[in-house]
Amino acid sequence: MSKLVYDFAEGDKDQKDLLGGKGANLAEMTRLGLPVPPGFIISTDACREYLAEGRVPVRLAAQITDHLATLEYAMGKQLGQPDDPLLVAVRSGAKFSMPGMMETVLNVGLNDESVLGLAATSSNERFAWDSYRRLLQMFGATVMGIEGDVFHDALDALKAERGVTADTGLEADDLKGLVTTYQELIEKHAGRPFPQEPREQLDLAVNAVFDSWNTDRARLYRRQERIPDDLGTAVTVIAMVFGNRGEHSGTGVAFTRDPSTGKQGVYGDYLENAQGEDVVAGIRNTLPLAELERIDKTSYHELIRIMDVLEKHYRDMCDIEFTIEHGKLWMLQTRVGKRTPEAAFRIARHMVAERLIDEDEALQRVTGAQLAQLMFPRFEESTDHDLLATGMGASPGAAVGKAVFDSATAVEWAARGEHVILVRKETNPDDLHGMVAAQGILTSRGGKTSHAAVVARGMGRTCVCGAEALDVDAAARTVTVRDGRTLHEGDVISIDGTTGAVYAGEVPVRDSLIVRHFEGEAETDADELVGAVATAMARADSARRLRVRANADTAEDAARARRFGAEGIGLCRTEHMFLGERRQLIEDLIIAESTEAQEAALAELLPLQRQDFTEILEAMDGLPVTIRLIDPPLHEFLPDLTELSVKVARQEDAGKIDEHDRVLLDHVRRLDEENPMLGLRGVRLGILIPGLFEMQTRAILEAAADRRDAGGDPQPEIMIPLVASVREFDVVRRHLDKVAAEVKAERGEVPYKLGTMIELPRAAILADRIARSAEFFSFGTNDLTQMTWGFSRDDVEASFFSPYLENGIFDVSPFESLDTLGVGEFVRIGTEKGRSTRPDLHVGVCGEHGGDPHSIHFFHGVGLDYVSCSPFRVPVARLEAGRAALD
Amino acid sequence: MSKLVYDFAEGDKDQKDLLGGKGANLAEMTRLGLPVPPGFIISTDACREYLAEGRVPVRLAAQITDHLATLEYAMGKQLGQPDDPLLVAVRSGAKFSMPGMMETVLNVGLNDESVLGLAATSSNERFAWDSYRRLLQMFGATVMGIEGDVFHDALDALKAERGVTADTGLEADDLKGLVTTYQELIEKHAGRPFPQEPREQLDLAVNAVFDSWNTDRARLYRRQERIPDDLGTAVTVIAMVFGNRGEHSGTGVAFTRDPSTGKQGVYGDYLENAQGEDVVAGIRNTLPLAELERIDKTSYHELIRIMDVLEKHYRDMCDIEFTIEHGKLWMLQTRVGKRTPEAAFRIARHMVAERLIDEDEALQRVTGAQLAQLMFPRFEESTDHDLLATGMGASPGAAVGKAVFDSATAVEWAARGEHVILVRKETNPDDLHGMVAAQGILTSRGGKTSHAAVVARGMGRTCVCGAEALDVDAAARTVTVRDGRTLHEGDVISIDGTTGAVYAGEVPVRDSLIVRHFEGEAETDADELVGAVATAMARADSARRLRVRANADTAEDAARARRFGAEGIGLCRTEHMFLGERRQLIEDLIIAESTEAQEAALAELLPLQRQDFTEILEAMDGLPVTIRLIDPPLHEFLPDLTELSVKVARQEDAGKIDEHDRVLLDHVRRLDEENPMLGLRGVRLGILIPGLFEMQTRAILEAAADRRDAGGDPQPEIMIPLVASVREFDVVRRHLDKVAAEVKAERGEVPYKLGTMIELPRAAILADRIARSAEFFSFGTNDLTQMTWGFSRDDVEASFFSPYLENGIFDVSPFESLDTLGVGEFVRIGTEKGRSTRPDLHVGVCGEHGGDPHSIHFFHGVGLDYVSCSPFRVPVARLEAGRAALD
Repeated sequence: MSKLVYDFAEGDKDQKDLLGGKGANLAEMTRLGLPVPPGFIISTDACREYLAEGRVPVRLAAQITDHLATLEYAMGKQLGQPDDPLLVAVRSGAKFSMPGMMETVLNVGLNDESVLGLAATSSNERFAWDSYRRLLQMFGATVMGIEGDVFHDALDALKAERGVTADTGLEADDLKGLVTTYQELIEKHAGRPFPQEPREQLDLAVNAVFDSWNTDRARLYRRQERIPDDLGTAVTVIAMVFGNRGEHSGTGVAFTRDPSTGKQGVYGDYLENAQGEDVVAGIRNTLPLAELERIDKTSYHELIRIMDVLEKHYRDMCDIEFTIEHGKLWMLQTRVGKRTPEAAFRIARHMVAERLIDEDEALQRVTGAQLAQLMFPRFEESTDHDLLATGMGASPGAAVGKAVFDSATAVEWAARGEHVILVRKETNPDDLHGMVAAQGILTSRGGKTSHAAVVARGMGRTCVCGAEALDVDAAARTVTVRDGRTLHEGDVISIDGTTGAVYAGEVPVRDSLIVRHFEGEAETDADELVGAVATAMARADSARRLRVRANADTAEDAARARRFGAEGIGLCRTEHMFLGERRQLIEDLIIAESTEAQEAALAELLPLQRQDFTEILEAMDGLPVTIRLIDPPLHEFLPDLTELSVKVARQEDAGKIDEHDRVLLDHVRRLDEENPMLGLRGVRLGILIPGLFEMQTRAILEAAADRRDAGGDPQPEIMIPLVASVREFDVVRRHLDKVAAEVKAERGEVPYKLGTMIELPRAAILADRIARSAEFFSFGTNDLTQMTWGFSRDDVEASFFSPYLENGIFDVSPFESLDTLGVGEFVRIGTEKGRSTRPDLHVGVCGEHGGDPHSIHFFHGVGLDYVSCSPFRVPVARLEAGRAALD
Repeated sequence: MSKLVYDFAEGDKDQKDLLGGKGANLAEMTRLGLPVPPGFIISTDACREYLAEGRVPVRLAAQITDHLATLEYAMGKQLGQPDDPLLVAVRSGAKFSMPGMMETVLNVGLNDESVLGLAATSSNERFAWDSYRRLLQMFGATVMGIEGDVFHDALDALKAERGVTADTGLEADDLKGLVTTYQELIEKHAGRPFPQEPREQLDLAVNAVFDSWNTDRARLYRRQERIPDDLGTAVTVIAMVFGNRGEHSGTGVAFTRDPSTGKQGVYGDYLENAQGEDVVAGIRNTLPLAELERIDKTSYHELIRIMDVLEKHYRDMCDIEFTIEHGKLWMLQTRVGKRTPEAAFRIARHMVAERLIDEDEALQRVTGAQLAQLMFPRFEESTDHDLLATGMGASPGAAVGKAVFDSATAVEWAARGEHVILVRKETNPDDLHGMVAAQGILTSRGGKTSHAAVVARGMGRTCVCGAEALDVDAAARTVTVRDGRTLHEGDVISIDGTTGAVYAGEVPVRDSLIVRHFEGEAETDADELVGAVATAMARADSARRLRVRANADTAEDAARARRFGAEGIGLCRTEHMFLGERRQLIEDLIIAESTEAQEAALAELLPLQRQDFTEILEAMDGLPVTIRLIDPPLHEFLPDLTELSVKVARQEDAGKIDEHDRVLLDHVRRLDEENPMLGLRGVRLGILIPGLFEMQTRAILEAAADRRDAGGDPQPEIMIPLVASVREFDVVRRHLDKVAAEVKAERGEVPYKLGTMIELPRAAILADRIARSAEFFSFGTNDLTQMTWGFSRDDVEASFFSPYLENGIFDVSPFESLDTLGVGEFVRIGTEKGRSTRPDLHVGVCGEHGGDPHSIHFFHGVGLDYVSCSPFRVPVARLEAGRAALD
């Protein structure tokens, strides 16, 4: 721990923990002999010590002095040397990239004296004063804590005065004057002058980088990205090279392949006579990288050679930053490059073909989240769409709906069946109800870590944020577009959560190519992307141990799930079969006054249920079908208490009483529960009204017998919900065994299994006892999450979801991604205890987490046999199960 | 396992597992040289083997033959020997007494031939035929499964024909005729004749006893009494002796001390010329035991001597059954006798004085349940009360209320504030709502294991059942008393759940003597019982490791709890302080439209809360006071959604809208939750509205400062409810630390602790993390039970409590007595994990289980530091905590 500072030559790319991503990769390039300006790295150890102690470690100053001396020796000049100053860049660089979150200061070493030396040695006065004003601007904002607008405003005023629009329009004298202005502004706002001493500049800049680790936005970003708070950042100090030194100078960013499409061949932008920040700021138009060949053939070919070296060395697509100073190429950064989902699949496939990586590595290069993005419906491609604005794609999807401007309207319109898009300047916790109700959320302000973006991603709602061309006026219920048009509440808009596009009117949505492929409508050779996805899926399927089933309640869903690769049904919810026309039958059952009336209602339901099951078993012939007996409280099939009470009260006042409504109200009152989630449902219903479970069991077994007689291979598994105690299970088992014996006598042997949901903490902790009787387990992680945390999904999302995210209590909703620490512990305990009694116990999960990538890795790790998820998530689950097996 | 049958001389009293209670005690008396008729015991091993295999173990028959031969040799005659038959009694006898639950057959060995031999050798023809008809009656009912009424009706018919009321009025010839009738009835109802072969009689009787282990009522009884189902029963085969053999014969039951009052000196009943069952049946009036001295001085003195031997030997009060046959005393049974709570305390104290037991043993002889019974309010003692009937005291307490005859009326009347007693012939699950609403339950049918009795005990409702003198007519809403009077719906009645008495009108209720003692109003020398209780309490207090605190929300309750021995407050619920007049303030807080309005409402609450806390800290000066910050959802302070919706709808229809109601309705709708138990409450509220917790914390700390300034010793402990994650705790801690720092700056150091409830499964399973920040834990076992099982107390009791009891899923409500297997596991895990991080972590429990004896033993076992319960349960908890320490 004594060594806190490292020269580039001392590190390598595997030391990201210690040197940060940027530092480690600079070290790696140095080791590879690539042209990297000399420099050194202050380690994350130093940062952590600084943050923990609240002051600079004593030995750090000494070590910086040593390394600075080495650097000065290598460069042949001293930091801020008046006649020919060495300038350095001070850059943050954490283990995980946190783009835009932390601080950078360039040109450290310039002061009122050395600026003259720089002007002289560079023979470029403008360049020298421009470099100095840049230092003042960055140092003032970053180190001295002055609002950035202070400097921007002064610059804008000067440009206006000079009648120019671009910075390049300013002359050396203008910039000299600006330096004076900036120095005055610094003294005014910070209460002290800009430090002239170069080493003081360096030390303050290093501390500022350390401090930037703990800004609110950096903390928030880390929570979003699940980056631990205790890593700290490294600081890279690197000799400045200048792309803004006139002719034969320039700067660029490049990728070794196209990060958007995955196409082979380099891809990038170049800007002549500029520094890196100019490229990012988009102040001048960049040139395609290929143009560099024309401008500076030697540097271009050197760059191409280096990119080839890097890609072969990193065995992945890299992105780089480079600068050319007077015809000399310098590498300033490299890393494995970010890419679109489409590019990820294509690049993985190409690299296998190029023998850079093998198939297992290729599978590790793509993710379920990327596959899910490829499966989202997309807007029809066309140039006819009426593009209003483009913001940031903050949460993917293609959403169409009527614009509404407040939460209450969103809720109200959604309740009557309308699709709405909630349009806000920015969202806050009061908008939660509306966000839940809306198809999508559109904001004119805020970035990818804004409230809207974070909450929408957490909920899986489509979101476009920061569409700054829109002027939202919530009071007037209008949005004015930069082109002058005005949209009103109720106007239909379409938003693309992937690209950030906002369109007027309804843009037609179509299935993605990949979905059509899974549906069997697009062959693997139809498109290179389809082939790439199919290759990854094939590898995942052969690698994975976890089976993947689907949650499906109808034959149609079952058939689709099967096309998507489902290996059975993990959850068939029977309550959905009691909706629509059949609602009346279940209402009859509930209000039956006698056993006979109850039995009559059940008898009417039997053939309907049998038909349901026959169809589903046929769609999944030869594969297991897990059918959950009815779970929700019966009053869910009846009208709402408050609405019906108001209706009957009004009838009474009007003297016109509807007898049916009155009787119904009695029953609704009887069945009303304070906390239906904690009430008469699941196995409790089966114990109180045994006829209900018995009817369902008979329908399942008779359907299986019908299928068998028709030559099929039905594999029904009957599942009891909400079991907390083996005694509950045994009571139900006695009833169902009786039915099974009757059906056996009538129809012959029908094989089936009888198992249970594990969705209550008690069931998990006593799973060893329950496994004595239950033949299989399926974790219901939705309810298990509710009971473990003691909150219901609805109520969480309606009230405290957003403060919980903001306070870092959640990284993401525990209903989206399994809380592995808490709820996961019950899954682990339940599985282990269950198998301690019944070693061959088949265990799966049928909560919505079954389709979540992060959760799937956990389920693989604790040894579940399968996950079950919605049909559309089946391919995602297959892919992630394969990746988990390779971890 | 090979030996299945044991002679009396082979066993002793510690072999109850093997020989059953009755058999083991007969063996013990035999070993003591007391006059026990010879016999042998078929072990519980044999029973378990019989029940598991479904047939008589082969070696059992052979072993019975051997032991029977020994018995025959000892008696000098053979089983059923025609000229002088050996007769035996076949009796059940399980490890734990199950009175009336299992079967007995007397006079086995009689048949058409040997009855003549018995008549001859006894020179008493009537005796012989009476014995034979008794065998037929018992054998027919018990072994051959014929309804008992078949025989009773025939006997009644014969008595009517002969014009006699008592059995003793029947002559030998009458009984001879009855034997013929019984034999015909047996053949008719059982389809086969009564077996004449004595050994066949014996074998069938033994099997019948085995089978009786698994009758429904025996199973139900075991569930009630928490007796495991797999113990099985032993069978005692003992030579018959006859108390009904005329002069110098008789039978009796006796206690070595008065089981009702605990008074020293024997106590019992004697019946001349009778068999044991006659005493129990109450057919003839018994004589006080003292009369036996006059009748048969020798036998009396022998009996007194034997009772003295037994009490010294068992070192406890014993009850016995004996028979005198022709002046020869035979002991037929003994066991440690049951006693009233009052007797239990008195006997324990007397026996210490007599040096029969030491103080620790004395403490083990009394229970918290007995103490609780002594603390129930009682009806004023008076002869003026109008006694209507006496049933069984099924669930203790003294309840007064208006008679209602159906559940709906009970609920309706109770809702408007009336006290009601639910009166039913018998109850069924449909009556649950009414039982919850009523002060007490009265039934005219059913015993201590009837639905009414079991459910009432489970809920802690007063209950009298089986008051057969009452004729309940639910349709007419009347109850007719045997004396001809009729009570109507709404008439006030009073029921005593301890004695079973039912009174007309309102009987005044008074505090028990023991409560007055704890209140300091009855000195220990005021009454022997008070002294006995005080002695036990003193021993418990010195023995126990568990501290006992009280749940108290007011200074008054705190003061009372302290008088009852509470060593602090374990739970002070602050929400109760927002009721009454202050409800308006919390309503203002909720409907505040601005931060200023919210702060203003909080500012108004602050001085009121400070006053609350000052008073409570004063009442508990020098002892810890754990104050829980506000827990329930805010809408609990607002009107009911349905009621308010109806009100506003009616206003709308009438065109007269109350603006306040309308605004209120908006807020009620906004705060409405599907599942309030799982919604915005506890720590979530503290995170969403930090000002609320901050105000409460300020009030607590300022109150403590005031107390300190006044010379007091305040020990506040602030407790955060419903924490699931250490991050929640830390967020709140940050807010409260800020307040604490402010108060410290203003008022100087105020010591306090900050801890958490552990009431969610996640908190228990992650207690190691939570203990990093929380300074103490208090298990909220009510919520923990709800979340672990996934049901709410209200909804359980309203719908499926009764089928759950009937099906043996509960033995008792898990809200009354801790579910040690499930919920208890979380208490154990939470405690262990918490202390793994913070070894000196103080851990208590503040759910209602803190006052439940069974649960207290569990809490002691897992190493909690204290239990907290309602003030009235404090003495019970102290006593049980002492007993637990001696276990």
